[in-house]
Amino acid sequence: MFFASDNGLGASDKVMQAISAANGGARLGYGRDDATRIVERQLSDLFEREVGVYMVVTGTAANGLALSTLTPPWGIVLCHDESHVMEDECCGPEFFTGGAKLVGIRGPGAKITAKALEASIASLGRRVPHNAPVHALSLTQSTELGLVYSVEEVRALSAIAKAHGAGVHMDGARFANAVASLGCSPAEITWKAGVDVLSFGTTKGGGLACEAIVYFDPAKGEEMVRRRMRGGHLLSKHRFLSAQMEAFLDGGHWLDLARHANAAAGRLADGLAAIPGIRLPLQPQANGLFPIMRQEIVAALQAAGAVFYPWSDKGLPEADRARAGETMMRLVTSFATSADDVDRFLAVAAKAARPLAAE
Amino acid sequence: MFFASDNGLGASDKVMQAISAANGGARLGYGRDDATRIVERQLSDLFEREVGVYMVVTGTAANGLALSTLTPPWGIVLCHDESHVMEDECCGPEFFTGGAKLVGIRGPGAKITAKALEASIASLGRRVPHNAPVHALSLTQSTELGLVYSVEEVRALSAIAKAHGAGVHMDGARFANAVASLGCSPAEITWKAGVDVLSFGTTKGGGLACEAIVYFDPAKGEEMVRRRMRGGHLLSKHRFLSAQMEAFLDGGHWLDLARHANAAAGRLADGLAAIPGIRLPLQPQANGLFPIMRQEIVAALQAAGAVFYPWSDKGLPEADRARAGETMMRLVTSFATSADDVDRFLAVAAKAARPLAAE
Amino acid sequence: MFFASDNGLGASDKVMQAISAANGGARLGYGRDDATRIVERQLSDLFEREVGVYMVVTGTAANGLALSTLTPPWGIVLCHDESHVMEDECCGPEFFTGGAKLVGIRGPGAKITAKALEASIASLGRRVPHNAPVHALSLTQSTELGLVYSVEEVRALSAIAKAHGAGVHMDGARFANAVASLGCSPAEITWKAGVDVLSFGTTKGGGLACEAIVYFDPAKGEEMVRRRMRGGHLLSKHRFLSAQMEAFLDGGHWLDLARHANAAAGRLADGLAAIPGIRLPLQPQANGLFPIMRQEIVAALQAAGAVFYPWSDKGLPEADRARAGETMMRLVTSFATSADDVDRFLAVAAKAARPLAAE
Amino acid sequence: MFFASDNGLGASDKVMQAISAANGGARLGYGRDDATRIVERQLSDLFEREVGVYMVVTGTAANGLALSTLTPPWGIVLCHDESHVMEDECCGPEFFTGGAKLVGIRGPGAKITAKALEASIASLGRRVPHNAPVHALSLTQSTELGLVYSVEEVRALSAIAKAHGAGVHMDGARFANAVASLGCSPAEITWKAGVDVLSFGTTKGGGLACEAIVYFDPAKGEEMVRRRMRGGHLLSKHRFLSAQMEAFLDGGHWLDLARHANAAAGRLADGLAAIPGIRLPLQPQANGLFPIMRQEIVAALQAAGAVFYPWSDKGLPEADRARAGETMMRLVTSFATSADDVDRFLAVAAKAARPLAAE
Repeated sequence: MFFASDNGLGASDKVMQAISAANGGARLGYGRDDATRIVERQLSDLFEREVGVYMVVTGTAANGLALSTLTPPWGIVLCHDESHVMEDECCGPEFFTGGAKLVGIRGPGAKITAKALEASIASLGRRVPHNAPVHALSLTQSTELGLVYSVEEVRALSAIAKAHGAGVHMDGARFANAVASLGCSPAEITWKAGVDVLSFGTTKGGGLACEAIVYFDPAKGEEMVRRRMRGGHLLSKHRFLSAQMEAFLDGGHWLDLARHANAAAGRLADGLAAIPGIRLPLQPQANGLFPIMRQEIVAALQAAGAVFYPWSDKGLPEADRARAGETMMRLVTSFATSADDVDRFLAVAAKAARPLAAE
Repeated sequence: MFFASDNGLGASDKVMQAISAANGGARLGYGRDDATRIVERQLSDLFEREVGVYMVVTGTAANGLALSTLTPPWGIVLCHDESHVMEDECCGPEFFTGGAKLVGIRGPGAKITAKALEASIASLGRRVPHNAPVHALSLTQSTELGLVYSVEEVRALSAIAKAHGAGVHMDGARFANAVASLGCSPAEITWKAGVDVLSFGTTKGGGLACEAIVYFDPAKGEEMVRRRMRGGHLLSKHRFLSAQMEAFLDGGHWLDLARHANAAAGRLADGLAAIPGIRLPLQPQANGLFPIMRQEIVAALQAAGAVFYPWSDKGLPEADRARAGETMMRLVTSFATSADDVDRFLAVAAKAARPLAAE
Repeated sequence: MFFASDNGLGASDKVMQAISAANGGARLGYGRDDATRIVERQLSDLFEREVGVYMVVTGTAANGLALSTLTPPWGIVLCHDESHVMEDECCGPEFFTGGAKLVGIRGPGAKITAKALEASIASLGRRVPHNAPVHALSLTQSTELGLVYSVEEVRALSAIAKAHGAGVHMDGARFANAVASLGCSPAEITWKAGVDVLSFGTTKGGGLACEAIVYFDPAKGEEMVRRRMRGGHLLSKHRFLSAQMEAFLDGGHWLDLARHANAAAGRLADGLAAIPGIRLPLQPQANGLFPIMRQEIVAALQAAGAVFYPWSDKGLPEADRARAGETMMRLVTSFATSADDVDRFLAVAAKAARPLAAE
Repeated sequence: MFFASDNGLGASDKVMQAISAANGGARLGYGRDDATRIVERQLSDLFEREVGVYMVVTGTAANGLALSTLTPPWGIVLCHDESHVMEDECCGPEFFTGGAKLVGIRGPGAKITAKALEASIASLGRRVPHNAPVHALSLTQSTELGLVYSVEEVRALSAIAKAHGAGVHMDGARFANAVASLGCSPAEITWKAGVDVLSFGTTKGGGLACEAIVYFDPAKGEEMVRRRMRGGHLLSKHRFLSAQMEAFLDGGHWLDLARHANAAAGRLADGLAAIPGIRLPLQPQANGLFPIMRQEIVAALQAAGAVFYPWSDKGLPEADRARAGETMMRLVTSFATSADDVDRFLAVAAKAARPLAAE
């Protein structure tokens, strides 16, 4: 019953086999191998246009490097107040950009609304050279609280950003989960909706350690060749990144894995909704759930061996937050979550909740 | 009728004469001259303890350099959302710290309350190494909206910061105005209340271009010798910084100048309060006023040659903000503001307001 | 006949099997798994003292991160003029250190001599705060030109560095080859000889992508937890780094692989020495050879499918450099180089050299 | 007898009077005042084309900021091994550029020759993305050892730089001394000879603290508006920088001051050349002399109150360097050096040398 994160269960068998298979024979290093060319072709096909591709091993690297090509060191990056770039990368974006300023925007479900984005931009000063200018908007798809931006939402947010001269970055560590949830094409939710550069994740979705920075206008990514190198993010045995990505994309494997994770989250959500002492202020749309649970239930689950953690509910409307005796928990499903694990989790929770039903 | 800023009126005569007087003869450069030793003595006397002193020419440099010794590049600096370090330095603090993150705290009058500080700290994650840790609190004294922190307030805020391992910086570009307003000793409102490093300003108060970074524990400032140099902020003809500061401090000149500016602001506030179509949601405590004015009055004043600018009212409670037909304006008085200028300003405003009174 | 680099032949079977084997089941991410504890134990045993261990995926990251804990942004890092940190990392060390200055020292074989180190330090100014102070010495073991520092040499260089207040970093991308060549213990050639922090490489030696930053005084590495994170170098599925390292170290596998590579280089060197039109100004001590070859021979080898590249001979004494009709080439052997490949290479070269013998 | 530096004697009377005169009345801050427009006009006239002008208070700031617009953080800046940017700014250029690499070129008199520049560029690797690419050449005019680049030399060096894609920066802390020495026009020795951006100094030449960064193509300097601000180098009371520069340029004052300093250096050189126990391996061309003196003479001068310092002779050909009993000293004359001081210095030296003549 491991629901602590979608990075806790290794890589998919297909990805792992591809890594092993890539091990024979000599290859040129640093991305000059054939497999890297294949991946570039695959991603260009997937996104229905020529793209620039730069693979690295972590989402923090992908995000920081991507943002560094959208903003000078004195620019503002708008992002959600609870986004990964803001909260979870230990000032990585500031490091890679050379000191840009991240300005957080609040909103439930870790989603930025068009209204909030406009208000945030309006509140920024325009005095030159005192006030730092806006250079980028970073959107997380799917969000840190398990929600998904619709195509219309991304389009509207991008339009606002561009009207103010800002480029648009999408943190797609869970891009696959979002696409699986939306049922749209990858092109529709990215460049057709105004996204300039995407951190396309495999790691949380079934890769071992591989994230592609994808430029929809390859010319915009040209200095990434240098930035990735000096950041220590160009692998000499780059074939092993390419092997992961090739397998991940091959035959729609990435979407199959994401659909599995999303389905497990749905099964879990349905089950939890029926249990007294548990409520779901946010209806899950991808592979993360954030139920608010009575502590008796949490304790029973942990005693039964379930691995999952509390999460901050600061982004919820006041009325929805955890009350005395409750905690908001994070449950993340993955490509490897079994229905059995879900059902056992629900059974333990239901049993622990029985006394509460009588209250 | 110049109320645009307190940096618009040159230096005080005494400061300018000191600069001229410092011009004769040979001196060793880079702060190895006698005048610099005298200033160190003056500031140690003023603050009632041995201090470390590093003079530079701008507040942005003083703030950024000071913060760089309180936080590593991956730390969080808490500050007010409308503070100069946050809004007006074009990512200077991020530059000097090597990429630290400034987290803005909201509150009326550009003041941070103890409650808001605690809430802000509580909202930050504690996961190592993902969440950046808090390393500094920066307070502006007096604030960007003309208010002053009391000794008790600084003490309470510092205590909270220190309980969480953070050092305390005070942006004292208008420190003189605050001390003149409070009537306390410089020691009481700084190190005795928990401040570790102060940007002690002369420029807005009557200097030409001189700000001292003051360490209350000199050992904490030791790497400033290198930081100031590589930032291009060590003047070869350092004698001219020392001359300014020596004259500014001599015989309480700094406080005399600040009292003059504060008195002018008080005279202006008293006059404005009596004029229909003008309201002062924030009672001025130093040398800045932020009246909300009917636009007819603003227009009449500008037509009469008054120089002053609109300012964002985003930090006010919703109910206090400018309504249709109104604008919040910033009026700053200085050591050189004449009573005559104040009275002329009030007369023009009063005349323009007459038709409004009848409304 | 692949002699282009020791990163062109994938990972050893044992390492690859360990990666596959690490794939089952749930693990906590970010290095909180058991395998990471095992690796820490292994390295402490290997080095005969408690060490601090931080694993990353590239040597550039390991070097830059390691140096960033030895020098402030305004310090000097002394290194060989042809070292990887100086020439091959696209300003990575400058990026990670926040702007430190690398000062190159010349010397044949990419080795720094004690005399050259002393002369370099003596030539640096000592004026505070103008002249940047020396904070680190970086040694490459084995060197970029295939030589090895003896224990006595490392000890002498470290002693000079420490006498001037500098810490000592060892770039051990090919540390295994050096230890295999020297026949000493890992402890003798590192901390016992004055090294403070080591980039311990597996990638060139048979790993997939894993380098450990090893602190011999764990307290000196404490901020690496943050530095690695913000650099995007902390893998979520960290188990796969640990798996590589565990297998690499297990049962002396790392030394077996290095001995194989070194032996192949020796076989190659012996063969080349006997061929007219080829000379070896540097006697190889690890797994890299830098023969100066007549171009006819180079052409014949390339026509026969050998993959190897020309290399700069700028570091050789004038008299030893390539003359008209010659080129200095780099040949690197690896854990996977076969005797057959070596012998075929030698045969092609010998055949191409026959007409030259008659000259 | 102050010959320690040209920054030890304050500002010229004309410059100081201009500062005092600028003190009356209100002005807009941050360079929006009329005097700043006048300076822009003056410099455009002086250089015979429209230039972009950004004033700051130190040469270190001017150099670092200028270089930051010529190179990305992963570029190489070629400069003399003994240049101010390399040796005397405590990693300031690395700070402002975000981590670019300065590569020093050797040559007598702190001058770079065309041959040495070509050899330096040829020795740099070209592998993308490993080897950092050359982005800038920085020339010091006049040099740290008192020599001057001719128009032909600057032209030849710039042509080489540009053929390799590098921009050209001129560190003109002593630009006035060079122009006075050469007798050419400012345009000829800068943009007409290929210089892209100049640090135009007043401080060493008679200003108080003012250096202009001058772009010969104003478009190349556009981001300086932001860079100067975030570096803390935009003065609020900017009028006082403009006043210095306006007076410095007015009526050829800058060249008059430089001619005075150069003449004093010439008088000193002529006198020293006739004294036994003193030799001048470098014939002075501007306002700095580097005599090698018998220590008895140095001691006698210091005893008589002369202020001057030893300097490294590492840049001289081996045969010219100081021998046992000798030291290379630096003597710098300034706009304020009196003939009387020169003659007294010579008299003391001559007297101390008398016993040596008999040797």
